[in-house]
Amino acid sequence: MYLTNGTSMFYLTGYSFISTERPAALIIPLDGKITFLGPRLEKDHVPLETKFIEEVKTYLDYPGEKHPIEHFASFLKEMGLAKKRIGIDNKSGTSAMWGYQGPPIGKKLPEAKFVDESDFVPSMRIVKSAGEIELIRESCKWANLSVSLLQEYSCEGLWDAAVALEAMAEATMIMKKALGPYYQPKRRVYPISAGFRGQIGEMTAIPHSMSTKRMIRKGDVIIAEAGVDVGGYTCELERTMIVGEPSAKQKRYFEVMISAQEAAFEAFKPGVKCSEVDKATISVFKKAGLIHLVPHHTGHGLGLEDHEPPWLDIGNQKPLSPGMVVSCEPGLYELGFGGFRHSDTILITEEGKEQMTYYPRDLEDLVVR
Amino acid sequence: MYLTNGTSMFYLTGYSFISTERPAALIIPLDGKITFLGPRLEKDHVPLETKFIEEVKTYLDYPGEKHPIEHFASFLKEMGLAKKRIGIDNKSGTSAMWGYQGPPIGKKLPEAKFVDESDFVPSMRIVKSAGEIELIRESCKWANLSVSLLQEYSCEGLWDAAVALEAMAEATMIMKKALGPYYQPKRRVYPISAGFRGQIGEMTAIPHSMSTKRMIRKGDVIIAEAGVDVGGYTCELERTMIVGEPSAKQKRYFEVMISAQEAAFEAFKPGVKCSEVDKATISVFKKAGLIHLVPHHTGHGLGLEDHEPPWLDIGNQKPLSPGMVVSCEPGLYELGFGGFRHSDTILITEEGKEQMTYYPRDLEDLVVR
Repeated sequence: MYLTNGTSMFYLTGYSFISTERPAALIIPLDGKITFLGPRLEKDHVPLETKFIEEVKTYLDYPGEKHPIEHFASFLKEMGLAKKRIGIDNKSGTSAMWGYQGPPIGKKLPEAKFVDESDFVPSMRIVKSAGEIELIRESCKWANLSVSLLQEYSCEGLWDAAVALEAMAEATMIMKKALGPYYQPKRRVYPISAGFRGQIGEMTAIPHSMSTKRMIRKGDVIIAEAGVDVGGYTCELERTMIVGEPSAKQKRYFEVMISAQEAAFEAFKPGVKCSEVDKATISVFKKAGLIHLVPHHTGHGLGLEDHEPPWLDIGNQKPLSPGMVVSCEPGLYELGFGGFRHSDTILITEEGKEQMTYYPRDLEDLVVR
Repeated sequence: MYLTNGTSMFYLTGYSFISTERPAALIIPLDGKITFLGPRLEKDHVPLETKFIEEVKTYLDYPGEKHPIEHFASFLKEMGLAKKRIGIDNKSGTSAMWGYQGPPIGKKLPEAKFVDESDFVPSMRIVKSAGEIELIRESCKWANLSVSLLQEYSCEGLWDAAVALEAMAEATMIMKKALGPYYQPKRRVYPISAGFRGQIGEMTAIPHSMSTKRMIRKGDVIIAEAGVDVGGYTCELERTMIVGEPSAKQKRYFEVMISAQEAAFEAFKPGVKCSEVDKATISVFKKAGLIHLVPHHTGHGLGLEDHEPPWLDIGNQKPLSPGMVVSCEPGLYELGFGGFRHSDTILITEEGKEQMTYYPRDLEDLVVR
């Protein structure tokens, strides 16, 4: 197996690296050593992060006097793999980015038979193990602290990014002190990502907004969110809050959003199709006459990536299984008015579901004073 | 032209979005409107960010009851492009990630002739305009403040991430207050990225380390770095510092690194091959007998991406031209001892070069007391 996807490599080995224009691959032969192929600057990094990689073969840098893909072909020859059947997750032989250019690995190893296995590791990741679930559960704790600080520090006249940077710094330091030797983010420089992404007032109507310049005002709807890297895994926690007394329209939209989320909560069960969960929230929005304000599906799997399968989408007929972990975040958004979305992390269990994130969800607890 | 690369889209339109599993594309027809194809949740976002995109066509979500790529094929038919010759930067028709799966757009539009133009926009980006250079120049100012705060706040007994989070929060708030209405990050949630990435003591020997749990100690070499989004562009500024009195060996490695960087400074000139700049630093490391400690080339272009062409690499025979902006960061790294690397942002000019970043480079200014 020849893997180029950094998340797949981390999943199998616990080794994480900064992806750049420099090609990298993990080679898992039937016989022989599990080998990392990559740039020289990762050589001493690999053994610090994992014991599962038994050998490291490197080229100096990209593009180099000899192209990295030619080095990779030479390395595979050295390993006796030049004429083998090799499962590969990316025919080019690399997931390098940022202006990387090069020939596909197959061109340099014409006698090898490369077989598309792009979905092999991703499909292993969909159902989480007990160990993975424990990491996500620990992540929920620190996300809860982060959103708690976001709510505590938010107030009229402050900039959302300033509130977020202060909350992230404090939560990160508390997390490290609390966990001591068990503190172990693996895939982020700073474990806690928490804030509003500019989702303040009318900008909450843009679910993927990135920033705003304006300050928080009385009457604003604001959306606070947090994810925390624990051993490489994260949960997702998001809360819609109102600054000061909610208006009647804010209350109504908030309650419809809560009803939609609860309809999804009730739908979660092993064997239920993902599309059924999405249909449950769509039905609530339709009954409320607000379906025209719904621009995205109910949720997505998560764990190693911010989003990953399974998709809680009307087009996804695959069934839920115990061990799947998904976000549950039906939302509604009105341009010029605001957006309303909670996101909770849900574990599918043998019996039904468990809500892993536990921050209060009711409006009365989410008023910023 | 059919573009899927988010950086290319930003370069041409000023519109930036969060890339996910949801396909997005920018269509630039010879006749007709410049059109964004993407998920419904970006519909209201596009006009807030740019006036260059004249139309937005959306599908609800991924995977959907009808696959996004089938929607894209329908949209292209509506635009009269189903039988045209279309330059494309990614044959799949999307740069979506995180478990996205789908057929290539060519399968759904068999009468169109798709032509590989993956390098068309990236090649436009290599030489910067006067406007782009001004944005990078402004970025240097805030990177300088950030590294200044990192040095000021660093001391024995502190955790590098705590120092970094505090410096980032303060620098970000100062930047917004100083720039007022001109404050305009475009492609990051928080404009300032500054810190050490765990490059503390012996971990500085791992140039792409991500974090460390241990505290800063007296005698440590530490590497501080900053990049700042101004209008979507960033510089790169990195400084090697010593906590307390430098040892003789630290002084020697530091001085060799400085000499290598200065050899590169002298080599920068329009018409000079990128490989010649790399050779200049290699020559210094060889003379010092330390070339075995050098695991990466001299530098890389930058601006919209953290790394981009041109590569200051011995294998790159392309010449430098006025308007290119590159990092200059030869480094040496000894496992168990430490790493030594400054990075400065260099503009190639008609006459030679301009060092855009201006933080002090000498050891005496980089001792942390």
